[in-house]
Amino acid sequence: MVTGRPVLKKPVYQFSEGDASMTALLGGKGSNLCEMFRLGLPVPPGFVISTESCLEYFDLGNRLPDGLEGIIRGSVGQVEEAMGRKFGSVERPLLVSVRSGARVSMPGMMDTILNLGINDSIAQGLALEMGDLRTALDAHRRFLQIYADVVMEVEPGVFEKILSHHKESAGVAQDHELTPESLNDVITDFKSAIRQATGNDVPTDPWDQLLHATEAVFRSWTNPRAIFYRNHNGIDHNMGTAVTIMAMVFGNLGPTSGTGVLFTRNPATGERKIYGEFLPNAQGEDVVAGVRTPQPISALAEVMPEASGQLMELAARLETHYRDAQDIEFTIENGRLFILQTRNAKRTPPAAVKIAVDLVAEGSITREEALLQVNPEDVGQLMVPQFKADVESDQIRSALIARGSGASPGAATGKLYFDTTRAVEAAEAGQAVILVRPETKPDDIHGIAAAVGIVTSRGGATSHAAVVTRGMGKPCIVGCEALQVDPERQLMVAGDQTIKEGVEISMDGASGNVYLGYLEAVRPTLDKLAEANDLLAWADQTRRLGVWANADTPTDAGQAIALGAEGIGLCRTEHMFLDPIRLPAVRRMLLNAESAEQWRRTHPDVEPGQLNATGMPSDVEEFFQALAEVRQLQTDDFTQILRVMAGRPVIIRLLDAPLHEFLPQHEALLAELAELRANSAPIAEIREKEEFLQLVESLREANPMLGHRGCRLGLTYPAIYEMQVEAIITASGELIRNGVQVHPEIMVPLTSTEEEMRRLRQALTGVAERLQQEMNGSVPYKFGTMIETPRGALIAGEIAGESDFFSFGTNDLTQMAFGFSRDDAEGKFLRCYVEEGILPADPFITIDPDGVGALLAMAVKNGRKTRPEMEMGICGEHGGDPASIEFCHQVGLNYVSCSPYRVPVARLAAAQAALKQSL
Amino acid sequence: MVTGRPVLKKPVYQFSEGDASMTALLGGKGSNLCEMFRLGLPVPPGFVISTESCLEYFDLGNRLPDGLEGIIRGSVGQVEEAMGRKFGSVERPLLVSVRSGARVSMPGMMDTILNLGINDSIAQGLALEMGDLRTALDAHRRFLQIYADVVMEVEPGVFEKILSHHKESAGVAQDHELTPESLNDVITDFKSAIRQATGNDVPTDPWDQLLHATEAVFRSWTNPRAIFYRNHNGIDHNMGTAVTIMAMVFGNLGPTSGTGVLFTRNPATGERKIYGEFLPNAQGEDVVAGVRTPQPISALAEVMPEASGQLMELAARLETHYRDAQDIEFTIENGRLFILQTRNAKRTPPAAVKIAVDLVAEGSITREEALLQVNPEDVGQLMVPQFKADVESDQIRSALIARGSGASPGAATGKLYFDTTRAVEAAEAGQAVILVRPETKPDDIHGIAAAVGIVTSRGGATSHAAVVTRGMGKPCIVGCEALQVDPERQLMVAGDQTIKEGVEISMDGASGNVYLGYLEAVRPTLDKLAEANDLLAWADQTRRLGVWANADTPTDAGQAIALGAEGIGLCRTEHMFLDPIRLPAVRRMLLNAESAEQWRRTHPDVEPGQLNATGMPSDVEEFFQALAEVRQLQTDDFTQILRVMAGRPVIIRLLDAPLHEFLPQHEALLAELAELRANSAPIAEIREKEEFLQLVESLREANPMLGHRGCRLGLTYPAIYEMQVEAIITASGELIRNGVQVHPEIMVPLTSTEEEMRRLRQALTGVAERLQQEMNGSVPYKFGTMIETPRGALIAGEIAGESDFFSFGTNDLTQMAFGFSRDDAEGKFLRCYVEEGILPADPFITIDPDGVGALLAMAVKNGRKTRPEMEMGICGEHGGDPASIEFCHQVGLNYVSCSPYRVPVARLAAAQAALKQSL
Repeated sequence: MVTGRPVLKKPVYQFSEGDASMTALLGGKGSNLCEMFRLGLPVPPGFVISTESCLEYFDLGNRLPDGLEGIIRGSVGQVEEAMGRKFGSVERPLLVSVRSGARVSMPGMMDTILNLGINDSIAQGLALEMGDLRTALDAHRRFLQIYADVVMEVEPGVFEKILSHHKESAGVAQDHELTPESLNDVITDFKSAIRQATGNDVPTDPWDQLLHATEAVFRSWTNPRAIFYRNHNGIDHNMGTAVTIMAMVFGNLGPTSGTGVLFTRNPATGERKIYGEFLPNAQGEDVVAGVRTPQPISALAEVMPEASGQLMELAARLETHYRDAQDIEFTIENGRLFILQTRNAKRTPPAAVKIAVDLVAEGSITREEALLQVNPEDVGQLMVPQFKADVESDQIRSALIARGSGASPGAATGKLYFDTTRAVEAAEAGQAVILVRPETKPDDIHGIAAAVGIVTSRGGATSHAAVVTRGMGKPCIVGCEALQVDPERQLMVAGDQTIKEGVEISMDGASGNVYLGYLEAVRPTLDKLAEANDLLAWADQTRRLGVWANADTPTDAGQAIALGAEGIGLCRTEHMFLDPIRLPAVRRMLLNAESAEQWRRTHPDVEPGQLNATGMPSDVEEFFQALAEVRQLQTDDFTQILRVMAGRPVIIRLLDAPLHEFLPQHEALLAELAELRANSAPIAEIREKEEFLQLVESLREANPMLGHRGCRLGLTYPAIYEMQVEAIITASGELIRNGVQVHPEIMVPLTSTEEEMRRLRQALTGVAERLQQEMNGSVPYKFGTMIETPRGALIAGEIAGESDFFSFGTNDLTQMAFGFSRDDAEGKFLRCYVEEGILPADPFITIDPDGVGALLAMAVKNGRKTRPEMEMGICGEHGGDPASIEFCHQVGLNYVSCSPYRVPVARLAAAQAALKQSL
Repeated sequence: MVTGRPVLKKPVYQFSEGDASMTALLGGKGSNLCEMFRLGLPVPPGFVISTESCLEYFDLGNRLPDGLEGIIRGSVGQVEEAMGRKFGSVERPLLVSVRSGARVSMPGMMDTILNLGINDSIAQGLALEMGDLRTALDAHRRFLQIYADVVMEVEPGVFEKILSHHKESAGVAQDHELTPESLNDVITDFKSAIRQATGNDVPTDPWDQLLHATEAVFRSWTNPRAIFYRNHNGIDHNMGTAVTIMAMVFGNLGPTSGTGVLFTRNPATGERKIYGEFLPNAQGEDVVAGVRTPQPISALAEVMPEASGQLMELAARLETHYRDAQDIEFTIENGRLFILQTRNAKRTPPAAVKIAVDLVAEGSITREEALLQVNPEDVGQLMVPQFKADVESDQIRSALIARGSGASPGAATGKLYFDTTRAVEAAEAGQAVILVRPETKPDDIHGIAAAVGIVTSRGGATSHAAVVTRGMGKPCIVGCEALQVDPERQLMVAGDQTIKEGVEISMDGASGNVYLGYLEAVRPTLDKLAEANDLLAWADQTRRLGVWANADTPTDAGQAIALGAEGIGLCRTEHMFLDPIRLPAVRRMLLNAESAEQWRRTHPDVEPGQLNATGMPSDVEEFFQALAEVRQLQTDDFTQILRVMAGRPVIIRLLDAPLHEFLPQHEALLAELAELRANSAPIAEIREKEEFLQLVESLREANPMLGHRGCRLGLTYPAIYEMQVEAIITASGELIRNGVQVHPEIMVPLTSTEEEMRRLRQALTGVAERLQQEMNGSVPYKFGTMIETPRGALIAGEIAGESDFFSFGTNDLTQMAFGFSRDDAEGKFLRCYVEEGILPADPFITIDPDGVGALLAMAVKNGRKTRPEMEMGICGEHGGDPASIEFCHQVGLNYVSCSPYRVPVARLAAAQAALKQSL
């Protein structure tokens, strides 16, 4: 074995030497084992190799530090003593498990080796001791299989094949039904297969096994599954994993043995009731893999009442100790209970909220702890869709084709896919996909991420699919055995129906029901969720950041208020423009704007509203007519939204989008013209189409993102912004007259120079003043700008002189700071950048603190220098992302604005940001 | 008259109270009149109203400050005293001129009023005094005409029509041939026309005339012509104009009177010889307008020898005093010489260089003064094209259709336009345009700016067209009377040929020759220009900034060296890719890159060069074959360029451009496919085209500027950058083996994160190290990056840790900082932004100091913190712009890199930056 420099720090901790605070050094699993040991819980003896040793291993170019081997040997000695067993001995042999464990839980992502320390002769010794040759051989078989996979990187399918072959020959269905003779054959075949695949044998020296296994667990930190998981969950790549080495205890020694998983509260509903599963005469891997369907935990009390009683008592102690619901792994070896692991339980979003609020009610934790305990995303997941139709309705009843266990709630409808790769492709092509698999494995993570829902025909509530989807807040059904899933033939059979890939199905991750065909799903409203309302009320008392919503319609605005929004941070007028009924008027306005403005420059005395002026050309007249139509539409829109918002601030962004977004597609026009010509249409018709095409072509842009949009439109075609301001002030004045409070804020988009803002402010507040005089009333409006170009952020101090408020458009700011077009980057290189760790996170999801964040911080600082009390917020999609919300809090913004359904998430995230800052 | 707040500062200066240093306060014209007065020159008495008064006038909302009127009346009193005349008196009346004059000369851009102080009875008094009724009436007629135009904004065409009508009735050709009777009729008609146009009369009270005229001159600072001129010449809009009020002297009192313009050196060639024009019995406006063709200045000695001798003596004194060639306006009134104005002479670029170098040789100025005296653009203008064929060749002789006066040198070929607006349109459509006009006026400035050359049939060397084009360094021919130009019918007649709009003509602004048809023009080389070489040698001794060139071919590289470049700051490999002969291989490489890289990831052991590996799919094989072809082509390219540069640094930028730039146009493919289908082509052919179309579509981007380009390509398709580095190192190694020095610098484009650079540096220097080992030699290369995204600039301190050098790509940095797509902005809003003063200058021409410049300064500072001796330069087009070069000097860059023909400009600009900093 090649080793590196000598060990300097303490690289190994006995369970007696650590505690729960040491997760960074010992990993979650290791530090919890130490903690449980300190609490006097029945933990098998063992020790932890620190994460620092792992990082040193990488630093040395994947070599163990000098001296570490000796320390490990000494530590094993202490375990031997505690167990009264000897590692590598044929008589009373000590077997150990070697487990990974990082600071953050990454279920199933890294590698674990069981039964290590075994070989042919030790297996014989173990058999003598146990009086059970089959179990000893099975332990050896399992060890070879796991070791070859994890340490020697042998494709695991080969072992499954050998096992299946022998089960077939023996005429049995389950692994544990194999006879010792068959198992000996299996072992022989495993060894040949390993030699054939790698040219090497599994070491027979237990010490070699131990050191190689330790290295393999270290290396598992950098395997692609682990990297993908960390990227997907925003976990730091530089933490490393600890290695826990612990004496093996056996749950498969007969009827008074077993293994299981227990939750102190129901992880799906949050109900305060022990919940879990138990497999008699089995090892832990059997539960997690979901190959055999386990029994409910309640069954344990009947089989082994004493162990069950002890387990319940210990579970309650652990929950109190950790101040949170626990997920506990245990094994009973010949009636003796061992706790192998405890951790805070993964849970569904409703469970997360209920548990936190219940723990406060029970007096176990404080409100602040509750606020910090719930992931803000979980509150968002409470908004997951439900089927619109009553589940008891005939429509839904008749569509039901199968029932499994609801593992992660939410209703979903999509096209059926059986293959992960094909599912990902279909999702990328824009389809809603439901992935149906016999079971899922860590390799399937891409497919799970791409699907809107997951169904597995096997596995229980703690199987891979169940755990992963709960983490993602994605609907999942497991153990749906009524479905015979055949991925090879891309179909499944439900009763007498054969259902093929691509067929639409629906699923309910709460009830576990699977339906054939499309069922409409709707989102619930918050008022039905009592615990969530309690939690969010506490959040509102705690947070400093305001939470506003982006809303373009009265419906969205109402929804936003219902979910707790305190204002509208972004009302996009172009979304109103795109309504197909309005589009014709909008198009006539935009297509004639250039001519109209030219004419206006030479006729300064003609008001925009003044039609039929002497000598007005027809296209100019058409412009003014369309402008009047759009003015009326916008006035109505703003009236409705401002009325709904009833005095809350409403930031209305003036027209931003590039003009051609409102025009027919260039290629469609080309095709239409080709058809007219092919059909020898009348010349006049062709000519008209040609002229329209020319106009559309004149508005096309090579890079519309950086083109003629935002305030550049406002400055070159002033009549449009004037019209919009007229609509805002007219609507506001009318509402005020009717006793409705209004606070409109007029926002200029895409400002990059002070002068743009100075001119628009002068021109547009002029319009507003004139209208107020005409109405003989006063509208309490603000006039401000978006900061969304890097230059705008750099000179924000100057722009602040002309702006009552700033709203940071971090989508565009991110695009321009990086030079990433969001439309293009995602599919072409951005995913690769995130997956390969070139970027720590997708900067369109979580704000980039070093670049975009630096610009934002600079703009806040300089803007406040000019105008200390300036209102500042963020209205990009980052406004609903918890990490970005924390950044916004730190940098001193007044509010975040996000989509209405993200409002509850933002409320909680803002509270957490305030609590974290005061820690 | 409405007046504003009281005057606080000294608002008016008598000529005796000012001097040449006071240009900011008194304008160029006014301060020079003061200076000449102090020197004892015969200047008519007068005074100057300061630019501060003008700015105060604007501040007060276009109202004269309180008290100013009294001060003006007092000042007129002093002039009355000096002249022994009385303003407003019928007996010995004082007439004055009212002239604008800003700090910077803006010829013809602002307004001047002559003969002010006249009315019907004063004209009669003047006639009695002069003994010449005609001249007195003509003075009144001229006054009415100018006053109505400038102060009352009457369309001037109406007066030309009245004059023409009366000349026709009287049967005379020239204005001065009109009899007093006719002139009285003209005056009556003028008055009616003014009343009809404005409802008002020209004031008869001379004091009203004077105050209104003063205000009108103030206001002329903001007329559209003046704003356009300032924008076009980069002049500050906030300086205001002074108003010079000076006693009128009359050059039209008979044969011993006259007026003229004189240059102390030939402004076209720089030759040390008095040059100028003289019109006997005329007022100054007649010379400038170019309506009558004047006599050469030498004729003056014959007509008025005494005045001529005095003039020559004074001219020499003025040149010595001002340490530069002078442009002097004079009037002789009844044999008595008056100097009306002197200023540094506008000159052609060769003249500018020759005059500066000659003045040094004559011991009149220092080398530093000479360096500061020449506009760097002038050195660039020395590179103006010349016709390739010998001017004496038959080809050129037979094409000659007319000969005028060469007013601004350079050869040009383009399509003929007579109308300014149509010329601008044609130029915008991408045509080279030659504008031919009877004469040009300030209104024509847009057309002059858009054309490649200007020809006028009238006017002399100091006419509007001549002065403006010399300033722009654009070929110009004036007084080309052989052409009968008819703008209304859009044609011209030359001898017996009628030539219509759109016909190609050629012109030589040096010889004054106009040719029919296309003549090939080429640029001269610097080695033929002795004075320029002297000046640039001094510049090289003075400047601190290096001057490098952007060059993609060996020819460009050689040209760059000949013009003084010290290295190549940007060698764009994609320009090599676009060669039509190479394009097929490049396309095969790019279209198969995605498949090849996917295959490579699963076959890490296969080297890119290793073809026909087991199981290699055909598209992957095609990729590697194409890659090998391109590698060979690039190796040859780099060998040639590095050989030419002979040890000078050569920065080679790895592939940057978006992939689709190398692929066939999407629309062309669509059309081809439609045709195949329409012609029922074989299915296989259609299928192939469809697949190709799909591939091209998959590479299309919504915003290619922000898309899959630059180092993003290098990270997603690593084989391409590896191939390019192989080509660079192989070429370098081969040259070193042959005794040629090389200094290649490998540049990664579009970096926005440290991690991109870290990975590419590791991978690509790995390739370079491997090749050097294989070659058993060492290549002295650098590895660095462009800083061209805002984020790259913001985190430059970190990127510097992975980069040997920075090259600032200020084109892209400007696009992303402002959010301006250069392709789209220009035509849609950027010109409007510059013309309307929203931006002080086009940020793609002159670096924006507040935004882009701030990013650059930040990056330089932070980069140098990390790597103090880091080589930093700029390779955007700003590298050839003098104002930007000065910024680069100030911010501490090591070099600028520009197109080869801008290298001389940059050398001089860099010297000026160094001199200005040390002032």
